[in-house]
Amino acid sequence: MTKQLVANVFEMNTPGHITHGLWRQPDNQRERYTQIEYWIELARLAEAGGFDAIFLADVIGAYDVYDDDFAPAVRRGLQIPNNDPMLLIPAMAAVTEHIGFGVTFSTTYEPPFAFARRMSTLDHLTKGRVGWNIVTSYLPNAARNFGLAEEIEHDLRYEIAAEYMEVLYKLWEGSWDDDAVLVDKPGDLYADPSKVRRIDHVGRHFRVAGPHLSEPSPQRTPLLFQASASRAGIAFAAQHAEVLFTADRPAGALAANIASIREAAVAAGRRPDDTRFLVMATVIVGRTEEEARAKLERYRGYRDAEGAFVHMSVPFHPLQHPDDITVREALEREGRHDVVARGGLPLHLTVGAFRRAVDEAWDERFLAVGTPEQVADTIEHWLDVDGIDGINLRQYHSFETVRDFAELAAPELRRRGRLRESYRPGETLRERIFGEGARLPERHRAARYRGGAGL
Amino acid sequence: MTKQLVANVFEMNTPGHITHGLWRQPDNQRERYTQIEYWIELARLAEAGGFDAIFLADVIGAYDVYDDDFAPAVRRGLQIPNNDPMLLIPAMAAVTEHIGFGVTFSTTYEPPFAFARRMSTLDHLTKGRVGWNIVTSYLPNAARNFGLAEEIEHDLRYEIAAEYMEVLYKLWEGSWDDDAVLVDKPGDLYADPSKVRRIDHVGRHFRVAGPHLSEPSPQRTPLLFQASASRAGIAFAAQHAEVLFTADRPAGALAANIASIREAAVAAGRRPDDTRFLVMATVIVGRTEEEARAKLERYRGYRDAEGAFVHMSVPFHPLQHPDDITVREALEREGRHDVVARGGLPLHLTVGAFRRAVDEAWDERFLAVGTPEQVADTIEHWLDVDGIDGINLRQYHSFETVRDFAELAAPELRRRGRLRESYRPGETLRERIFGEGARLPERHRAARYRGGAGL
Repeated sequence: MTKQLVANVFEMNTPGHITHGLWRQPDNQRERYTQIEYWIELARLAEAGGFDAIFLADVIGAYDVYDDDFAPAVRRGLQIPNNDPMLLIPAMAAVTEHIGFGVTFSTTYEPPFAFARRMSTLDHLTKGRVGWNIVTSYLPNAARNFGLAEEIEHDLRYEIAAEYMEVLYKLWEGSWDDDAVLVDKPGDLYADPSKVRRIDHVGRHFRVAGPHLSEPSPQRTPLLFQASASRAGIAFAAQHAEVLFTADRPAGALAANIASIREAAVAAGRRPDDTRFLVMATVIVGRTEEEARAKLERYRGYRDAEGAFVHMSVPFHPLQHPDDITVREALEREGRHDVVARGGLPLHLTVGAFRRAVDEAWDERFLAVGTPEQVADTIEHWLDVDGIDGINLRQYHSFETVRDFAELAAPELRRRGRLRESYRPGETLRERIFGEGARLPERHRAARYRGGAGL
Repeated sequence: MTKQLVANVFEMNTPGHITHGLWRQPDNQRERYTQIEYWIELARLAEAGGFDAIFLADVIGAYDVYDDDFAPAVRRGLQIPNNDPMLLIPAMAAVTEHIGFGVTFSTTYEPPFAFARRMSTLDHLTKGRVGWNIVTSYLPNAARNFGLAEEIEHDLRYEIAAEYMEVLYKLWEGSWDDDAVLVDKPGDLYADPSKVRRIDHVGRHFRVAGPHLSEPSPQRTPLLFQASASRAGIAFAAQHAEVLFTADRPAGALAANIASIREAAVAAGRRPDDTRFLVMATVIVGRTEEEARAKLERYRGYRDAEGAFVHMSVPFHPLQHPDDITVREALEREGRHDVVARGGLPLHLTVGAFRRAVDEAWDERFLAVGTPEQVADTIEHWLDVDGIDGINLRQYHSFETVRDFAELAAPELRRRGRLRESYRPGETLRERIFGEGARLPERHRAARYRGGAGL
């Protein structure tokens, strides 16, 4: 069977997400992100274009490593200012019927009980169109915003995240039986309390009594997204994630990245097709190749090279050094002996090579430019040769990127059977991506709590 | 000048809010609370009727004292199941232009940094139409849902709340100057970082670095609601609250309740008209008095007397004892010697008197029943003689209560100059209620942090 593309719009509730400098285009709409009208317009466009979902990134701190200050990020609107992503979903759900929503939320700083209810609420309001991008956070400033002196160490974050998931599964899958809610008015019985139970979770990091406050929602557990390449991240993904963001980093490693997660998931009792893989991708499409190339050049003319270093928390100034000295020398010239001692940066690289590596990390391994036919060729190659299942479409321009994809790329992809013809009415996001039920399959670890088993 | 009524719809994201048993009316819509369409319909009706705001109550636990179990609450849909209230606001904002939203959130369980961003996000999305009902929570089950063995003691909750407020004020008022955001595209300057600052709050309960992630929203600090009658609550309200829920409890004490809070607020440097007072009220209106009376009787026919005891966390069964024994005797017959020893209940009252007191607490000190003229007379009496400023309208039926008020009571109140003729385009919720600026006045303690002073 021809593999169809999963196509998400990649967004964030901020002026500068992942296209550094591009907010400055005169007719770009990014600065309207505070307005509900921006999101209503985006949601309608994306649904008219047949996208699967709008995927919302998030951070809960400021990037403040470059220059040892948040100023370079604030100046650029680079993920600061930002607003809460979850609160966009009801506004977009109010004006759409089909498109899904993925939202990023960290397991590190906020209590699971409140989050469980928020996601159940979204699953109800959207009729099962919601997904959660599980992150554990990585910004030092985020830790300091939540009372901690420094970021919790990586493996401990994943340990906390693992317990967080169990609490959520107990609440979402185990606390209310499917048939608990009766709405029996003559019988004076809204819900049958014998089918509702506390979870009484007592763990190393959390104590949660329950019962879950929300009645059963269409998906119960929202569709689970995750991005991670670390060892702890892969072990976690194997247990939990349904849709994964991955990348071709180091170059050429994409297939291995996908295979290793899939293997680990199978070892955890899941099936090979229980996980799907997305990459961030850029699609620049025109009516002619020249038009597309001109568009790309126009976008690139706004690119802000320094923004990438701010975003990647680079603790020195790569643009201020000659190409041919090493990163170690550059750090030493800036007096950052602490960074040299700590390691973590490729000290042996030349500054020129480091700059190119950063450029490549931001750009454009998954870049399709050209006519509808040309970008469809490229996307088919991603699907069939690279082995991915879908993309998070990076926006170079709001709303040109989404509109171009919808008007020019999508019809050609449909012609080739690479994109759904239409939405199936009433389907949940999980059904759309996996083609099976609204709920997690029985072989997922969340299912063990159903009916109150294992509580 | 003729005092105008502040009129809010009193709601909660649950089937059974404060009208026990009334969800059972065959044509009541309460069980649709999980659906976005319910809230869209309500918001449109309420805005068409000219209400000031939709006020959303909340609890983050189950009522489980009666019967020592959550079963009596679950059976009735009595505030369980419930969903998150904050997530309703963007959906309702997406389909309205004017109506405000008040949302309940507790200072006891979730970190202030994330909450600050959520409220700023709502203030942006609604263009300044949002208020926050500050609560400190009181349900034992809520505490156990957030890792605590029991509810935090009352005065300590208020101490935590006071520090919570300072953190929020620093983020909302002190972290970004009014003119920080420039959106200067040619100048490559989204915001001026010299006008953005960390708050570096270090207190007894919280450590929060900042900067606030959200850029300045219309109201910055949302309109501040509070309900409290305790001594710690009044001291808190005097410092913080702008709109207060109060009650005529004990009977005849309304004027004294209002006066004591107003005095305390003046002692805190505020003006007498910096605080407004709302009561929960019932308005049953018909085209004729008979029609209104019949409606009231119909509603009362669905009343569930036991629900009130469940809701009030009564630790015995007042309906199972004769009228003439005392509460102490009833408790002893049920073996609740622990409750007798702990005190807190009026042990000397007869069970009959206790039942009547509970009935009165739920009903209908502020009850207006009759023709439009009759209910307008009653409401004018509340405003001019009782001295209140507005009401949270209790819903006996969704959406009959709101529709009746809008279609029958509101026109008569407008005829008498007791209700705004229309909304002023673009006004924030604070401007609507106080008629002055969108921001808290300079004399409110939040203002001390403006421009970064006092951080």
